[in-house]
Amino acid sequence: MHRYRSHTCGALSTAEVGQIVRLSGWCHRIRDHGGVLFIDLRDHYGLTQVVVDPDSAAFKDAEKARSEWVIRIDGKVRLRPEGTENADLTTGAIEVYATDLEVLGPAAELPLPVFGDVEYPEETRLKYRFLDLRREKLHRNIMTRGAIIDAMRRRMKDQGFFEFQTPILTASSPEGARDFLVPSRLHPGKFYALPQAPQQYKQLIMMSGFDRYFQIAPCFRDEDPRADRLPGEFYQLDLEMSFVEQEDVFAAMEPVITGVFEEFAGGKPVTKNWPRIPYAEALRKYGTDKPDLRNPLVMQNVSDHFRGSGFKVFARMLEVEKNEVWAIPGPGGGSRAFCDRMNSWAQGEGQPGLGYIMWREGGEGAGPLANNIGPERTEAIREQLGLKAGDAAFFVAGDPEKFVKFAGLARTRIGEELNLVDKDRFELAWIVDFPFYEYSEEEKKVDFSHNPFSMPQGGLEALNTQDPLTIKAFQYDIACNGYEIASGGIRNHRPEAMVKAFELAGYDEATVVERFGGMYRAFQYGAPPHGGMAAGVDRIVMLLCGTTNLREISIFPMNQQALDLLMGAPNEASPKQLRELHIRSAPQQK
Amino acid sequence: MHRYRSHTCGALSTAEVGQIVRLSGWCHRIRDHGGVLFIDLRDHYGLTQVVVDPDSAAFKDAEKARSEWVIRIDGKVRLRPEGTENADLTTGAIEVYATDLEVLGPAAELPLPVFGDVEYPEETRLKYRFLDLRREKLHRNIMTRGAIIDAMRRRMKDQGFFEFQTPILTASSPEGARDFLVPSRLHPGKFYALPQAPQQYKQLIMMSGFDRYFQIAPCFRDEDPRADRLPGEFYQLDLEMSFVEQEDVFAAMEPVITGVFEEFAGGKPVTKNWPRIPYAEALRKYGTDKPDLRNPLVMQNVSDHFRGSGFKVFARMLEVEKNEVWAIPGPGGGSRAFCDRMNSWAQGEGQPGLGYIMWREGGEGAGPLANNIGPERTEAIREQLGLKAGDAAFFVAGDPEKFVKFAGLARTRIGEELNLVDKDRFELAWIVDFPFYEYSEEEKKVDFSHNPFSMPQGGLEALNTQDPLTIKAFQYDIACNGYEIASGGIRNHRPEAMVKAFELAGYDEATVVERFGGMYRAFQYGAPPHGGMAAGVDRIVMLLCGTTNLREISIFPMNQQALDLLMGAPNEASPKQLRELHIRSAPQQK
Repeated sequence: MHRYRSHTCGALSTAEVGQIVRLSGWCHRIRDHGGVLFIDLRDHYGLTQVVVDPDSAAFKDAEKARSEWVIRIDGKVRLRPEGTENADLTTGAIEVYATDLEVLGPAAELPLPVFGDVEYPEETRLKYRFLDLRREKLHRNIMTRGAIIDAMRRRMKDQGFFEFQTPILTASSPEGARDFLVPSRLHPGKFYALPQAPQQYKQLIMMSGFDRYFQIAPCFRDEDPRADRLPGEFYQLDLEMSFVEQEDVFAAMEPVITGVFEEFAGGKPVTKNWPRIPYAEALRKYGTDKPDLRNPLVMQNVSDHFRGSGFKVFARMLEVEKNEVWAIPGPGGGSRAFCDRMNSWAQGEGQPGLGYIMWREGGEGAGPLANNIGPERTEAIREQLGLKAGDAAFFVAGDPEKFVKFAGLARTRIGEELNLVDKDRFELAWIVDFPFYEYSEEEKKVDFSHNPFSMPQGGLEALNTQDPLTIKAFQYDIACNGYEIASGGIRNHRPEAMVKAFELAGYDEATVVERFGGMYRAFQYGAPPHGGMAAGVDRIVMLLCGTTNLREISIFPMNQQALDLLMGAPNEASPKQLRELHIRSAPQQK
Repeated sequence: MHRYRSHTCGALSTAEVGQIVRLSGWCHRIRDHGGVLFIDLRDHYGLTQVVVDPDSAAFKDAEKARSEWVIRIDGKVRLRPEGTENADLTTGAIEVYATDLEVLGPAAELPLPVFGDVEYPEETRLKYRFLDLRREKLHRNIMTRGAIIDAMRRRMKDQGFFEFQTPILTASSPEGARDFLVPSRLHPGKFYALPQAPQQYKQLIMMSGFDRYFQIAPCFRDEDPRADRLPGEFYQLDLEMSFVEQEDVFAAMEPVITGVFEEFAGGKPVTKNWPRIPYAEALRKYGTDKPDLRNPLVMQNVSDHFRGSGFKVFARMLEVEKNEVWAIPGPGGGSRAFCDRMNSWAQGEGQPGLGYIMWREGGEGAGPLANNIGPERTEAIREQLGLKAGDAAFFVAGDPEKFVKFAGLARTRIGEELNLVDKDRFELAWIVDFPFYEYSEEEKKVDFSHNPFSMPQGGLEALNTQDPLTIKAFQYDIACNGYEIASGGIRNHRPEAMVKAFELAGYDEATVVERFGGMYRAFQYGAPPHGGMAAGVDRIVMLLCGTTNLREISIFPMNQQALDLLMGAPNEASPKQLRELHIRSAPQQK
């Protein structure tokens, strides 16, 4: 018989009744029923009930065993007594009567129980991650993560993509975030950088004549802690294709992402034919470029109804050309209590308040705004928004660029408060036509709004002739349930257009050569048209595991302070190490 | 029609004759035959011959095209004229008569041609890697690499392994090589390290209750340049299993590696049932723990024949107990010219020479050694080695620990010079029973010879009772054609045995806790018996691609000085970056 097991803890059923078996695993739970010990023995594959009574030679050792001890038992499989079967377990019809027991790995008193669902502080969970990972839900999430990545890989290959590994020790990449640096020992005073994304490499792979690249790529950004991003490293499903237009990328990726979602959605509906929403429209309708389309609320511009009206605050605002008034419909929200609650919420968000009109059952529109603009305009608003008695509408006014973010938050809040958001579905959409440039208030100049390597719509001619702030890019995102889960673009593969694009953002050719030398060089020697995208693996896994915390789907994450509490990283380096790397610690600097 | 192509350059055959098609690709070769242009248009999938004659509207643009320009052509598929078909190409029976041509990406004069097999300096190849990668052989190697990794992954899954991603920003790992460090911005004076291997993490994954782990894992070692290792980063097929003994690891891995080799060996034979060679035996027979078993030569201890003999140099040596004389047989090497050549080679290797006996056709053993020891002993040596007329034997003498490496080199050289090595096969073997400790002359103390986490054979009892230098470890390698391609062990999962093992090597418990805190902590809370190994992906790909240069199978490698000539890494960091990371450059230090 095998030294440790003849079967796993998930393998036995009534078919093995009468057999002598050997199992190894962790003591998940130990119960003493009138002197007879019941051990739920657990391994990766399942749980098996082991019975040890005082007549068994195993009893003496079994009495010593505690939770999470690793033991090996030999015994005979038998049917559980009638009425004690457990239909939730594959092994629930049998138990093993133990005749021999060996302690393989004892356990000290646990800082964190494995059995049970009690919440524990994150610090304890991360320090004792090996215990936390034994717990059912986290264990399952990590396995699901692996299965999702497998599915991504399989589906990418089915679409004709090839997998490549790009370097991790490289030069600074231009994603705009902060790089992690690695001092070079052999080249004093110089540093490698960890890639923020394999952006330049994947474009170089296209220029190297490989046609369809993908990678489950580790990416590194030294950013301040953010709730929706793991500190340090994260994974992207990264891809690039040659001889394609935007439509080709969509046609390749939509089935991959839809397929992965359907495979792991547990029966929840997944969007079949994704809507394509221009960036400007997404802002207008949803107040964000990553709208949660499970929320049916669509905002509308209702400026006309307030222009010259008796509600002077809005009327005066609208005298400034760029200002507008947007309405967020609130179907079913037509009560004073609800409208007041939303108003208070807005004040909590730092707003002066949230104007509203409510249409009570059987009555006209009511509330201060309705009173000020009068019944005709109130009715016109109701008609435009398609509302009825019992509904409300909320209003934000001013410069849309400034209020759009709050308007989006309000739309989300109202939708949730009114229970309009169907949580049990995945709504996917392409967001397209991102602006190529934006005006940087900080630097008082035009700058790239997203990826400088994207192809401007209209190409070199648009760069030469259009107001930069009106140029759109062949750049697109995938939004799902309020998250941006992927981003990409058709690249600018013409060196003269690339130089011009950078020039408009205030960077001269020398800067382009200095910062993106390898890629700029490659553009000179026969560059194919190409484009691609990158999807956030961690975020997709998080959505599919039904959690909002990335540390629930990453096996050994750092905490929010970028500390690895399990391994004790970062830690001190020895003076010898620093000498070899030609650096000195200078922690007093700011 | 699609903007860029209706077909790839490898797709057209006689089935499409008469069709109007669109192709995009690189101008691989352009020939002018009496005013008619023949363009071999190349993409990732193949080559298609495009014909442009002066009657075509495409002619004016085609005349401008040069090697490696990216173009799009429209045209009609037609049969090639009889006698001009090219059976080597899938598209060799047809050509496309171009009616329209668009330049998508022009190319400047090439620093490195893509067409043809001319050797180019490595510096040029790496700086213009995107051109080098378009060349047939390197392009194919990179695709083979991807296919091999796919096969590894598929076969690991078929064996019930699950894939995990372990962190890349972590703490120093204990593999014994030098770490790459990453200064922490948020924690002044502290550093992350890039993993030399996921050794601790994979053991922690076992302690987390996952049963069978694998990963195609990036590993990082800041070592001085070595011919058989890429500078900086390399990939391992890393795996670990719980509740196993050495035999289980062998049973899981042998079919994976054999399968991968068979799949990519191109018909070359691959060892079916791998021999298991104890470390000590490998040294005795082959002079190395990574023997090339394609070489049939087996060394033998022939000390007895020289003890007290007339060859005083050896006889006196043998008066010291540890000294021995080993013979390397040289079948077919029984000529003065050959023996002298080997003697000169040995002198070139810094040895005083290489003693030999040769058995000329029809004569007795000859040469200075034979003359000194006399015919009887000479004959006894011949008999022990199983040699015959026309053969030779070569001798190394002294302390085996000191001469073994040279003996191994001599065996290799002799085998190659005598054409005994069948290059067209893959010979795989397990090397087992590595010593747990070795005596470090440098530090004048016992130290771990390989992995400190391995289980000593005999466990805690052996540690408590045996001379440490006689303890073997459950540790094993895979050798293939003279390369170590994998290494592993059964781990020491008992904390008390781990502490004892370190104590014997001079490290106290505090050091263990400090250096391996996370893992040591995990051992306290129910650790399962476990073991695994790691195979060198790059080296396996190198062998299967039939090259000896790792840069031929890596897509964007650094050069031997750890410089990335394409991306310009490492490079200078800005003063702001260094300030943020709380370090100062100190390049004057040594």
